[in-house]
Amino acid sequence: MKPSAFFATLLLAAAALLSPVTALAQKADRQHVVIQVSDNDPAKWNLALNNARNVQQDLGKDKVDVEIVAYGPGLNMLKGDSKVAPRLAQALDQSIGLMACENTMRNTKTTRADMYSGISYVDAGVVHIMKRQREGWAYIRP
Amino acid sequence: MKPSAFFATLLLAAAALLSPVTALAQKADRQHVVIQVSDNDPAKWNLALNNARNVQQDLGKDKVDVEIVAYGPGLNMLKGDSKVAPRLAQALDQSIGLMACENTMRNTKTTRADMYSGISYVDAGVVHIMKRQREGWAYIRP
Amino acid sequence: MKPSAFFATLLLAAAALLSPVTALAQKADRQHVVIQVSDNDPAKWNLALNNARNVQQDLGKDKVDVEIVAYGPGLNMLKGDSKVAPRLAQALDQSIGLMACENTMRNTKTTRADMYSGISYVDAGVVHIMKRQREGWAYIRP
Repeated sequence: MKPSAFFATLLLAAAALLSPVTALAQKADRQHVVIQVSDNDPAKWNLALNNARNVQQDLGKDKVDVEIVAYGPGLNMLKGDSKVAPRLAQALDQSIGLMACENTMRNTKTTRADMYSGISYVDAGVVHIMKRQREGWAYIRP
Repeated sequence: MKPSAFFATLLLAAAALLSPVTALAQKADRQHVVIQVSDNDPAKWNLALNNARNVQQDLGKDKVDVEIVAYGPGLNMLKGDSKVAPRLAQALDQSIGLMACENTMRNTKTTRADMYSGISYVDAGVVHIMKRQREGWAYIRP
Repeated sequence: MKPSAFFATLLLAAAALLSPVTALAQKADRQHVVIQVSDNDPAKWNLALNNARNVQQDLGKDKVDVEIVAYGPGLNMLKGDSKVAPRLAQALDQSIGLMACENTMRNTKTTRADMYSGISYVDAGVVHIMKRQREGWAYIRP
């Protein structure tokens, strides 16, 4: 093999090996945060919604992904008759992810018909939050 | 040095430099979560135990490490007379780590004789949780 | 190009590409933790201060950076008339960062004159906590 061939081969090998590092560096450009709601407390729900809005205002709405994950006693936040229902519409309008834990729904005999229209669902809230942390998202528990 | 010797040397050097990246990639296969209990509230203790169980059920018991760390006012969760004592036995059976903060124990004149039998101990709950986060574990505060 | 030139070029390229990995490894030597206070609850404030002190005692005061960030209903912790005011002086003496959220201050018509003297300020508490997590700091929510 000629030296020039070595050079090309090694650069390709290095690029392949370094792809996880490059991916991390790219991720760092855009920010991400998952906000957990696990309390049955409308004051906490409002705080979570304030946090989401402030993050968008501070970083720029198109520069940050924001998700609110409600599970356990926090599920009530995302029900159709939630005390913060008017703010849920605003949050969805602002592309804030609102995610209900289907595990909690099964355990509490709650159906999608009971939930606020337009929200998203995850199989297990905690597992989703773990996944986001592994992907490099920040975690906020108001 | 011959080109072939270069090739070998550089590959070895790259492998040595990249070992942290490889370690991160290997870690990604197995999941890990540390769950914090710092409230003196049996509802929170049950929620933490539910979270631990759901994570195991969702990801597969042998594919995820789960630890519950109790400190501060949360220490009562892991005492012998805890209101969730029957569930502690189940958790230990399922290989869920139950860890009491010895710092809190010293400050509250609590001895191991006061604690639920079979649990584990860490010198300082918060420092243990920091260590787990540095090791790449997800952090959940129910 | 001579083989020796290749060698040098490739090592430089590898060093450049690997700098994020090296930075991570260096960071691992020193520890960092950001502690969130978002409850209007003096018991939680004391717990946060205990956590900060214990982390310093356990790891060595000069080996760990500790910040307490107060936002939302937790802002009261850092006011001049805070119920934990005497402990705030001690914390500042021990180089524990005490940071108030100016976003919360604006929303609650609170001025710096209302706050405990000597504390620091961040524009948005949640965004600061996200930044710290991206920088590799552990996150504790007592």
